[in-house]
Amino acid sequence: MLKGACIFGQSGGPTSVINASAFGVFDEAIKNPNITRVLGAAHGIKGVLNDQLYDISFEAQGELERLPYTPSSALGSCRYKLADPDKDDTDYKRILEIFKKYDVRYFFYNGGNDSMDTCNKISKYMQKVGYECNVIGVPKTIDNDLYGTDHCPGFGSAAKYIATSCMEVYQDARVYDTGTIIIMEIMGRNAGWLTAAASIATHAGMGPDLIYMPECEFDLDKVIGEIKEVYERTGNCFVAVSEGVKDKDGVFIAEYGSKDGAVDAFGHKQMGGAGAFIASEVKAKIGAKTRAIELSLLQRCAAHCASQTDIDETVMAGRMAVKYAAEENMTDVMVAYERNAKSMEYMTMFKPLPLAQVANTEKKFPLEWINEKHNGITRDFLPYALPLIEGETKIKWEHGVPRFARLNKVLAK
Amino acid sequence: MLKGACIFGQSGGPTSVINASAFGVFDEAIKNPNITRVLGAAHGIKGVLNDQLYDISFEAQGELERLPYTPSSALGSCRYKLADPDKDDTDYKRILEIFKKYDVRYFFYNGGNDSMDTCNKISKYMQKVGYECNVIGVPKTIDNDLYGTDHCPGFGSAAKYIATSCMEVYQDARVYDTGTIIIMEIMGRNAGWLTAAASIATHAGMGPDLIYMPECEFDLDKVIGEIKEVYERTGNCFVAVSEGVKDKDGVFIAEYGSKDGAVDAFGHKQMGGAGAFIASEVKAKIGAKTRAIELSLLQRCAAHCASQTDIDETVMAGRMAVKYAAEENMTDVMVAYERNAKSMEYMTMFKPLPLAQVANTEKKFPLEWINEKHNGITRDFLPYALPLIEGETKIKWEHGVPRFARLNKVLAK
Repeated sequence: MLKGACIFGQSGGPTSVINASAFGVFDEAIKNPNITRVLGAAHGIKGVLNDQLYDISFEAQGELERLPYTPSSALGSCRYKLADPDKDDTDYKRILEIFKKYDVRYFFYNGGNDSMDTCNKISKYMQKVGYECNVIGVPKTIDNDLYGTDHCPGFGSAAKYIATSCMEVYQDARVYDTGTIIIMEIMGRNAGWLTAAASIATHAGMGPDLIYMPECEFDLDKVIGEIKEVYERTGNCFVAVSEGVKDKDGVFIAEYGSKDGAVDAFGHKQMGGAGAFIASEVKAKIGAKTRAIELSLLQRCAAHCASQTDIDETVMAGRMAVKYAAEENMTDVMVAYERNAKSMEYMTMFKPLPLAQVANTEKKFPLEWINEKHNGITRDFLPYALPLIEGETKIKWEHGVPRFARLNKVLAK
Repeated sequence: MLKGACIFGQSGGPTSVINASAFGVFDEAIKNPNITRVLGAAHGIKGVLNDQLYDISFEAQGELERLPYTPSSALGSCRYKLADPDKDDTDYKRILEIFKKYDVRYFFYNGGNDSMDTCNKISKYMQKVGYECNVIGVPKTIDNDLYGTDHCPGFGSAAKYIATSCMEVYQDARVYDTGTIIIMEIMGRNAGWLTAAASIATHAGMGPDLIYMPECEFDLDKVIGEIKEVYERTGNCFVAVSEGVKDKDGVFIAEYGSKDGAVDAFGHKQMGGAGAFIASEVKAKIGAKTRAIELSLLQRCAAHCASQTDIDETVMAGRMAVKYAAEENMTDVMVAYERNAKSMEYMTMFKPLPLAQVANTEKKFPLEWINEKHNGITRDFLPYALPLIEGETKIKWEHGVPRFARLNKVLAK
């Protein structure tokens, strides 16, 4: 077996449980005899390129144990796209230099589709230049859109927060006898998993009347008509809409209201605004009291409402990454979730999945769970979703607010 | 002692714990031998005027016991302003008619400033016409702006949610090394208590850098300058701003961005938009990545993050209302909170306060707890605020989401 240091890095948008992955990797790596030193990269791959690596041995065990209950990326994250190594290998040479400097033989990278691509490129480069290093992808995304895994760390917690908030807003929005239309905008660029989580509230009797997914064409006139029908029939209307809904020409509804075409480093369009735009249209065309609510960052950082199932599985997935790399000598794989079909009870198993299969492939929401009118989610979604949001976080509180982890972040030399 | 039916009604904007008041009143009234029948008004005083009263004896005890953990107004609320009885006594005659129809001798009204005014007017009218009925105000407002009470039911829970969400957003907003400016808009028309709650996160090391209160003049140029200074010095800036901030001429900043001058039945201006407006100004003048987050309805209905101290006190205040009316034969008072100054530990006592003193008087946030630069809250606020957010809700969960109360709502005949 390889012997040497390990680096763990966090990449992409954070989640409520991304640090649960960190804890799983750190705790398992500290115990593993093949891992001589545990390093955390500041801001993902950027921290490797900039030689900014935290020495985890300087962290108190008590603070590390708070990580699974601490939202956002404790080490810092990044959105950095590595070049095609055949065209420009500058970054790769630098990564190799850093790996050699610290004798890094294990590299764990935590993220979504783009990060698995980063992971895959690094792994292939190291193989090409003959530097022995086991590279493992640790999944993470509230979007739940990673290929080949039953679900993704972070999704269950975001889904639990969204369903809970929908139930609460549903009740708040209908206290007056005067009627209100609520347009709630939920994250999800191309996959509607999070928006679909609002239907859990609906099936509990306190959720959106209408749900619009990015997987279906969004026709503004049809939607206004459907909202009007519900509002006139019931006196209220609660709508959940994905930030990523698009018209028949593929134009984001969010763009209808803004001309700002800013894109991030991966070429993704900057999102936000679909809900506010639809609300202003509804107000103008239906004339009812209308309120747009954007769950915004809250849905991906509300650790106080995380799913304990999600937390537990995420820690375990982090541990599996270390076991794959440093006990089973695997490389170039992501830790994937598999639902045990043989068990009557919900049970998650882990399996290694080749990174090349995962990278840059999106798992859309199944069309068969969207209703015929394309404005709701069927009950068929529930057996899939409910086990993922089961259990309330064991987060610790101090003086009435959560006591999150505080890391020392001592740079390695 | 008077013997007869009681009516309990909910008025104004709901809170996470408004139904805790309902439970306190119902549970105590059911046990009280002087109260022959317990009725709940559909949509507050409107339910009385429309003869829409629910007979609480048709509700299951198990569901009533879930009320303290169920947000929003379970009976429905209203924003209805009674006329000056000397000018138009139509509504009062109708109320008297309904009181006589059901032999109502106890009237409990749950709300904020305006509702205490409603309560006071009804009480005075009943005294004038010689109809014996004990009228008690049950306080409720997330705004914490009721005169003569140490704090208000609902505030502690909203404050806990705001402080917690600020801590989570703080961490989320600084995961990248590229810098972000967050403008979080918090409720509070004229009193900044809720906005000040964001400072709890700051004092815990994970909160807003700048806090702008409606109690102080808001100078846009000064504010942009302060945000720029923090952003350039630290690479990030997190701002909490009250929806009700006003310039030196008393113009709401929210109105800078919209010409919509709609007012509600009490003549209050419709709020919302200060955060979005400031964010767009910041983006234009500083050029940094900027995001506006509006906590919107979530801050007043997030029962899943309620303060158990708030819940317990609110139930108790409901019980006290019944005791004042049906054991001590009081009328024309509101149940007020008093902090026991003789106790080393935080302890809340109750006292009756004449409605006339409470009605229409707003309690602003103390200026001595606002820093000299008018952009932050001092630590002096903490001994006041921390006991109010202490303790996590004992809410029950089912299938991963809260199990809220479900009432039968059988109309009384």
